[in-house]
Amino acid sequence: MREVAVIGIGQTKIDEHWDKSLKDLAGYAILDAVKDAGLNQVEALYVGNMMSASANHQAQLGAYIADWVGLRYAESFKLESACSSGAAAFRTGLLAVASGAVDTAVAVGVEKMTDSPGNEITAELATAADSDWEIAQGISFVALNALIMQRYMYEYGWTKNAFAPFSVNAHANGVHNPYARFQKAITEQQYLNAGMINDPINLLDASPIGDGAAAVVMVPLEKLGPSSANPVVKIIASAAATDTIAVHHRKAPLWLKAAEISSKKAYSQAGISPEDIDFFEAHDAFSIMAALSLEASGFAEPGQGPKLALDGAILPTGKIPIATRGGLKARGHPVGATGMYQLVEVVQQLRQQVNGTQIENARIGMAQNIGGSGSNIITHILQRV
Amino acid sequence: MREVAVIGIGQTKIDEHWDKSLKDLAGYAILDAVKDAGLNQVEALYVGNMMSASANHQAQLGAYIADWVGLRYAESFKLESACSSGAAAFRTGLLAVASGAVDTAVAVGVEKMTDSPGNEITAELATAADSDWEIAQGISFVALNALIMQRYMYEYGWTKNAFAPFSVNAHANGVHNPYARFQKAITEQQYLNAGMINDPINLLDASPIGDGAAAVVMVPLEKLGPSSANPVVKIIASAAATDTIAVHHRKAPLWLKAAEISSKKAYSQAGISPEDIDFFEAHDAFSIMAALSLEASGFAEPGQGPKLALDGAILPTGKIPIATRGGLKARGHPVGATGMYQLVEVVQQLRQQVNGTQIENARIGMAQNIGGSGSNIITHILQRV
Repeated sequence: MREVAVIGIGQTKIDEHWDKSLKDLAGYAILDAVKDAGLNQVEALYVGNMMSASANHQAQLGAYIADWVGLRYAESFKLESACSSGAAAFRTGLLAVASGAVDTAVAVGVEKMTDSPGNEITAELATAADSDWEIAQGISFVALNALIMQRYMYEYGWTKNAFAPFSVNAHANGVHNPYARFQKAITEQQYLNAGMINDPINLLDASPIGDGAAAVVMVPLEKLGPSSANPVVKIIASAAATDTIAVHHRKAPLWLKAAEISSKKAYSQAGISPEDIDFFEAHDAFSIMAALSLEASGFAEPGQGPKLALDGAILPTGKIPIATRGGLKARGHPVGATGMYQLVEVVQQLRQQVNGTQIENARIGMAQNIGGSGSNIITHILQRV
Repeated sequence: MREVAVIGIGQTKIDEHWDKSLKDLAGYAILDAVKDAGLNQVEALYVGNMMSASANHQAQLGAYIADWVGLRYAESFKLESACSSGAAAFRTGLLAVASGAVDTAVAVGVEKMTDSPGNEITAELATAADSDWEIAQGISFVALNALIMQRYMYEYGWTKNAFAPFSVNAHANGVHNPYARFQKAITEQQYLNAGMINDPINLLDASPIGDGAAAVVMVPLEKLGPSSANPVVKIIASAAATDTIAVHHRKAPLWLKAAEISSKKAYSQAGISPEDIDFFEAHDAFSIMAALSLEASGFAEPGQGPKLALDGAILPTGKIPIATRGGLKARGHPVGATGMYQLVEVVQQLRQQVNGTQIENARIGMAQNIGGSGSNIITHILQRV
């Protein structure tokens, strides 16, 4: 298995892009990534996306985007695992390059959610839950997360304010990220006063939908010349795991087993432990998910994720910074693109190219992308060479 | 890059399966493949599927199917490239095993089309065409193929009866395939009299939709013991290429450029030429596509695909047999599953396990899966060791 480096990154601002189509967004991110890599061409394109067939009436985004971006005839197909589609595309690009099948690959995550009316988007997001056991009962995706959060607060005795630091930190960091949907700080009081969506999840617990695309270019480390313009970042671990889609089917609904499995595999591949991770782009689709992700990945004991946040450990200056560029909460969550934004941000940190929230001496960064309510979790660890 | 062998195959009959869900179908095919491989467990599952999010209200089939089939916690995600989703899943499994990332992978193609009302399926199939340039104009997928066939007949002077042998051969071969949707022979006269759908495509030019799943198990060749129950089949080539989705954007709308590129790459990887292929599972979604596929893959000169058929070269006893188990026309075309059926059939032929239409001394077989009207084409070549 060849070692693989990320040599190019690109992204669009996450926003309501009424003037840009899905292929525009993907195209801009890809072109920026290819330019950043100093290349003119790549061999293969892997697309992470969740809902284009329904929201945009377009399947086979592979050929659709490849042609638009000047890669007509290149290998290309789409990867989908709900909200972790971005990381699935990254992992597929990695496998293609690592195997020797291709020498240059670009992976892009893209989602154009505003093409779909508001009530339809809720139904489309619900396809990430279990159609037989959850959706058929009329529960929404937010409500599922609310049930988890309610149970978590009951089991571990936390009150609502213990979750405030997750959203406050994400928004504080998003201020410095020009690609973030929300570049605006919030206070603990604003968090506590925010409008309720599904008790106990309020508006400032939930990440916003949006339109956006992010892309990376991957090549074998062995083919890198000595003259790379940017610091070289290599992928030292990639692991994926699944769990039941329906939350009530899990033995322990407050434990992200797929996060535990994929992060443990990743640590093993990299030959490191959680203490070696300098920062962690967690999947804070809801603040409860940030807590669960920190716990299952070995950064906090079960039930103690909020303590980490209350202690300031998740701040850019803390022991295990998360959402360093705003996270899903402030940067935004265009579902199939999110995993790729996380990876682009990990590369930015490792290259020391971040304004405002640069993690000092960041050498090893981790990204974890969660599909469904914890049913498909993909963990990557990258390192500055 | 490790060499990879297919050691297990499984499939369901293609039919209107009113009593089975999508996960039932996928599950049966996977369990059969894993059993056929002599294994109890596999590490990873790659799912090829086109339209589950709309037709079955279920995204992230990876986790959905993995759990159902006893692979809870295994790596799994979905691959989509319209009608070539099956081969995309096969290729991803191959990349995963070839790279060394996993040692046992199962790839499944599955589609459950009868969950969706008839008129919706037509709209869902249309997402394989270009939403901006084709679908927005009101054209259906059949109509696009009809335009291609019309132009082809005009350019090369063929009349309708020249296409009869494609459908007659497919149906004759399907008679012997217990998994085929149509196990019934047809005559040339029946073909010529069939009801018109979109001139010149009639009912017996077009493959039927259906519900079905097919699966294969892949392992590194180096890990195979000497005691395999079945003849060993290895993958000697895998290549994918795209083209514009909109047919009118192509310089030569009668030439499947993506088939030419992916087949040439495949021949080069395998170190062979078209003459070395003993049989070819072509993508005969419409009879015109069988002709175009034969031509672009080097088996006939441009415009001479029908001649090959008229000469009997495509029969099981011919020079380049196609649709040896019924093809898309008679076996059926559950879109995201089709590519995997083709590969399962190639393995059956190479193992010499086919009743009625066994290709004598078959040693090298090729499968080509076409997404859209030629916009995403994936070619695999397998060989009996």
